[in-house]
Amino acid sequence: MFPEYDVIVVGAGHAGCEAAAAAATMGSKVLLITMNMHTIAQMSCNPAMGGVAKGQIVREIDALGGQSGIVSDKTMIQFRMLNLSKGPAMWSPRCQSDRMLFAQEWRNILEANPNVDFWQDTAKEIIVEDGKAAGVKTSLGIEIKSKAVVLTNGTFLNGLIHIGEKNFGGGRTGEKAATGITEQLVQLGFEAGRMKTGTPPRVDGRSLDYSKMEEQPGDENPSKFSYTDTAPLTKQRSCWITYTNSEVHEVLRTGFEKSPMFSGRIKGIGPRYCPSVEDKINRFADKDRHQIFVEPEGWDTVEVYVNGFSTSLPEDVQYAALRKIPGFENAKMFRPGYAIEYDYFPPTQLKSTLETHLIKNLFFAGQINGTTGYEEAACQGLMAGINAHRNAQGEEPFTLKRSEAYIGVLIDDLINKGTEEPYRMFTSRAEYRTLLRQDNADIRLTQRGYEIGLADQKRLDNVNRKIKEVDEIVDQFSTTKLTPEEINTTLEQWGTAPLREKTAITQLLKRPQITIEQLAESSSKIQDIIANYNPDSVQQAQIHIKYDSYIEKEMLLVEKMNRLEDLNIIDNFNYDAVSSLSFEGREKLKRTRPTTIGQASRISGVSQSDISVLMLFIGR
Amino acid sequence: MFPEYDVIVVGAGHAGCEAAAAAATMGSKVLLITMNMHTIAQMSCNPAMGGVAKGQIVREIDALGGQSGIVSDKTMIQFRMLNLSKGPAMWSPRCQSDRMLFAQEWRNILEANPNVDFWQDTAKEIIVEDGKAAGVKTSLGIEIKSKAVVLTNGTFLNGLIHIGEKNFGGGRTGEKAATGITEQLVQLGFEAGRMKTGTPPRVDGRSLDYSKMEEQPGDENPSKFSYTDTAPLTKQRSCWITYTNSEVHEVLRTGFEKSPMFSGRIKGIGPRYCPSVEDKINRFADKDRHQIFVEPEGWDTVEVYVNGFSTSLPEDVQYAALRKIPGFENAKMFRPGYAIEYDYFPPTQLKSTLETHLIKNLFFAGQINGTTGYEEAACQGLMAGINAHRNAQGEEPFTLKRSEAYIGVLIDDLINKGTEEPYRMFTSRAEYRTLLRQDNADIRLTQRGYEIGLADQKRLDNVNRKIKEVDEIVDQFSTTKLTPEEINTTLEQWGTAPLREKTAITQLLKRPQITIEQLAESSSKIQDIIANYNPDSVQQAQIHIKYDSYIEKEMLLVEKMNRLEDLNIIDNFNYDAVSSLSFEGREKLKRTRPTTIGQASRISGVSQSDISVLMLFIGR
Repeated sequence: MFPEYDVIVVGAGHAGCEAAAAAATMGSKVLLITMNMHTIAQMSCNPAMGGVAKGQIVREIDALGGQSGIVSDKTMIQFRMLNLSKGPAMWSPRCQSDRMLFAQEWRNILEANPNVDFWQDTAKEIIVEDGKAAGVKTSLGIEIKSKAVVLTNGTFLNGLIHIGEKNFGGGRTGEKAATGITEQLVQLGFEAGRMKTGTPPRVDGRSLDYSKMEEQPGDENPSKFSYTDTAPLTKQRSCWITYTNSEVHEVLRTGFEKSPMFSGRIKGIGPRYCPSVEDKINRFADKDRHQIFVEPEGWDTVEVYVNGFSTSLPEDVQYAALRKIPGFENAKMFRPGYAIEYDYFPPTQLKSTLETHLIKNLFFAGQINGTTGYEEAACQGLMAGINAHRNAQGEEPFTLKRSEAYIGVLIDDLINKGTEEPYRMFTSRAEYRTLLRQDNADIRLTQRGYEIGLADQKRLDNVNRKIKEVDEIVDQFSTTKLTPEEINTTLEQWGTAPLREKTAITQLLKRPQITIEQLAESSSKIQDIIANYNPDSVQQAQIHIKYDSYIEKEMLLVEKMNRLEDLNIIDNFNYDAVSSLSFEGREKLKRTRPTTIGQASRISGVSQSDISVLMLFIGR
Repeated sequence: MFPEYDVIVVGAGHAGCEAAAAAATMGSKVLLITMNMHTIAQMSCNPAMGGVAKGQIVREIDALGGQSGIVSDKTMIQFRMLNLSKGPAMWSPRCQSDRMLFAQEWRNILEANPNVDFWQDTAKEIIVEDGKAAGVKTSLGIEIKSKAVVLTNGTFLNGLIHIGEKNFGGGRTGEKAATGITEQLVQLGFEAGRMKTGTPPRVDGRSLDYSKMEEQPGDENPSKFSYTDTAPLTKQRSCWITYTNSEVHEVLRTGFEKSPMFSGRIKGIGPRYCPSVEDKINRFADKDRHQIFVEPEGWDTVEVYVNGFSTSLPEDVQYAALRKIPGFENAKMFRPGYAIEYDYFPPTQLKSTLETHLIKNLFFAGQINGTTGYEEAACQGLMAGINAHRNAQGEEPFTLKRSEAYIGVLIDDLINKGTEEPYRMFTSRAEYRTLLRQDNADIRLTQRGYEIGLADQKRLDNVNRKIKEVDEIVDQFSTTKLTPEEINTTLEQWGTAPLREKTAITQLLKRPQITIEQLAESSSKIQDIIANYNPDSVQQAQIHIKYDSYIEKEMLLVEKMNRLEDLNIIDNFNYDAVSSLSFEGREKLKRTRPTTIGQASRISGVSQSDISVLMLFIGR
């Protein structure tokens, strides 16, 4: 009934969609299996993409040739660049999305890909032949063969939804859970665990009093995620900010004894940095208020997402507490918040390609690896899809270094350190964050995406043009000098010392008080230069000039580290033969099977002396 | 947590949406409970509205002030007026819909109604107080009070999906079944039964060869459903026609032993007039082909609905058989067809308002009453919503006579005759079908819709203008005469006898060969008249003139019958006191409790002599 596919992707959330799109774009015949074709690319939690560190990931996905950036751009209702008051390493794009349009756009993109087939069914079992994944069996009893399988089961594996003292099986609210996969994988030797996440109630926007809240409009000149020619927004919808208060907290506390979190009914560990509101008031008992973002769910719908109010308290407690929030006095709920427990597989069982160590050609991506967040899921899906394709074609693995991308940081963290709680990306996780900026993801990654057949020629041309323009601009800024007469008034106006002699633009730009836009206002020389270039290139040149020394410092660090990264450890290295390794170090190395000394050095439990022993053994 | 509502509507399919919209528009505070807010107004079977007799129902819903016509107009991708070669009683509007837009548009309409609240949950139990429905209990354990409850559970009550030898609980594919309601109602004394329906596989439009099929484009000048100012289509998508053949049938037969239909695993009775393809080849073994309509599921999606190929055979048999259909040689399936069994309640347990006899303020609408079809469901929802509102407000019942509307025929059939199989509307079910045309639903019903506060002033103004215009046109056509000189060439051209003397337009129009459009081509007198009027009014006048005698004949019949309809039987009439009633007649009368002698005469099992006895007793 089915041909043999190159890649079967199980699940059509953020991870599954990126995996299917990537493998198919690169040429694999892909089958996407979803439990319900109406719920492809559902945003199951907040209607938003990006944010701090997450926005950088979306830019990276886009730079490599993934689709999340394009989908986000086409379906957003608000865009904001966060952290603009900080350095450019911290700038983070974020958008509010129209939940329904987002799902539709993803489905359109997948349908437009001739290599993607669809099948509505539930995967119950992986077909394993000779220790290799060779397809899946479905709940209809169908066997579908493939060269590689990508599992992106999200919160569906033995999903259990909690609201107060009630709980029931489900993968998302209103949808069935999936069973079978965990049980089989455990039997095959995988370690499985249990995690928990949650979502806030949705309320009726018609019942809110926005006059009691603070408006949070989108950026005046909204940017976007994709480096392609998606259109920026011409109109936007605002979000609103309000706060909980001690009354709200008091009401919430009345539900604590029925809380599945506090009673111990929920065994899974929840996301520390996206805690439920009951967690917040419990852990920070001295704080008498918490911020609430009131987010519209789309252009037209009246449904509203209450960001910051994730909860699994009984629905009547949720309701009573909500109504104590300013602006929510008459709030009507559409659906209560809930917590969901689900199975995950500790990601130390994965290679850096997201292939499992135990079963060749079997890949995991998304929440099944213990992560949280759409962006984290999407980038894993992309990498798993790429590598599933390359496995199927007998090509070399494709991985990203920590110095190349947040995606590299994320996967390196997961496979070496594992995670005890839902893993979320932060800028602080990246040691080279000055390099891993949202503005240069294309420069960092598009060439690589092009080489593997994912990013197309137009993307490569664009980035090469940008690189060339930046070089030219930097060059012209270094050779073009401004005279005291022409610029001193401006400099004084911005509170910085006047010139005594002609000075190159580059020199002036290094002053923190001064931007190229400010200088351009009174300098026709600058105006003439930048008129010839794309504003993005001008921005990029400015960042290069201003942060030159930081960037260089990090580049040196990267070089030094890369020497370790370049020291490969062969695939079946016999750690037992290295007698001087510590016991713990040997065990962890055998479990993770790092591919380089650099990776080995980041495995928790592997000591510096273990590394020295290894390096000696390898021949340094 | 919830206020007391006037009306709670359980279920948000075609019936539930109309019920909620109607009651809310009339002023009731309505709570719409749905298992999943993402699946409001799903078209679970074919992406189309209308068709023979069904299109008339949509027009009637619209004329009364319901929403199905407006939603259909706004989301259709193709429109055809069926049966144009027959008399106007048979003309039937039908459209293909964009499945996703249809659902979205309904949600927008409901959200725009300030009287509609939403709650995502599953109703588990009706709250009954003193023999009256007083709200519902949900699966979250919440009790929500109301003055009336409308149940529109569709195929969800103990829904069981069958594909070949496999079966699993579900209300629609990928969605959970609902339990509890049937069990409670049976305990309360309701009779419940089991029905079955089915749906065809969905396939990948990219895998079809349309060059082997016959194109079925939309009408050149597409009309629409709503009498309001919705815009007609300016572009359309085609459907395609192909046929099964003996090879297809042979392959299908290989699955018969695994068929849940033929093996007896399915106990519920299916829709006779919408049979599965295996049923067709089984029942009509001599037919060597059956028509297949290949229907796009929307403007953009590649998903395609295989109309005419409903099946619950094993999915591999479905697949193999599909591939024998011309144009389907390389077809890929997205999802298999399936059959679904579900609980219904024989509708003889209902009053003509769709309120149950047993429990006051409890209404049933849609498939729960043993009907099939979106349109049948929607009109029941509308009538139940109207009457739930009127009950809640202590107002008189609102019902439609068989002579007023297909909706009246449908409900009268259901409550008096019941149904042993899924009930579908046909023109043949209406004894006054010359009156119940799609072109005059507004004239028949908008005044009534206006009186109950459902149709708005603008609708009434429109229909009054139309009535006035039709009168004027008919008047002018009767007094304006054409001379032999000016019209004989035209008459001969259309193959009808030339005039000998001046003749009124009316007289000419009675000739079956001639239409007003044809006459207008060469008569400036006619052009001058019709230029002053809306084309709809001209059409209407023409129909009135042409079918005058038929219409009048039916009007006389109606009058005669209405004399019986006007003979009311009091609510708690004591049939046991009328000793000369037949045993069966008495039992059936006690069960159905007709409100008029007319209704009593249509109850199966009530004889003409029973009616005579009753009429004597009542005082005639």
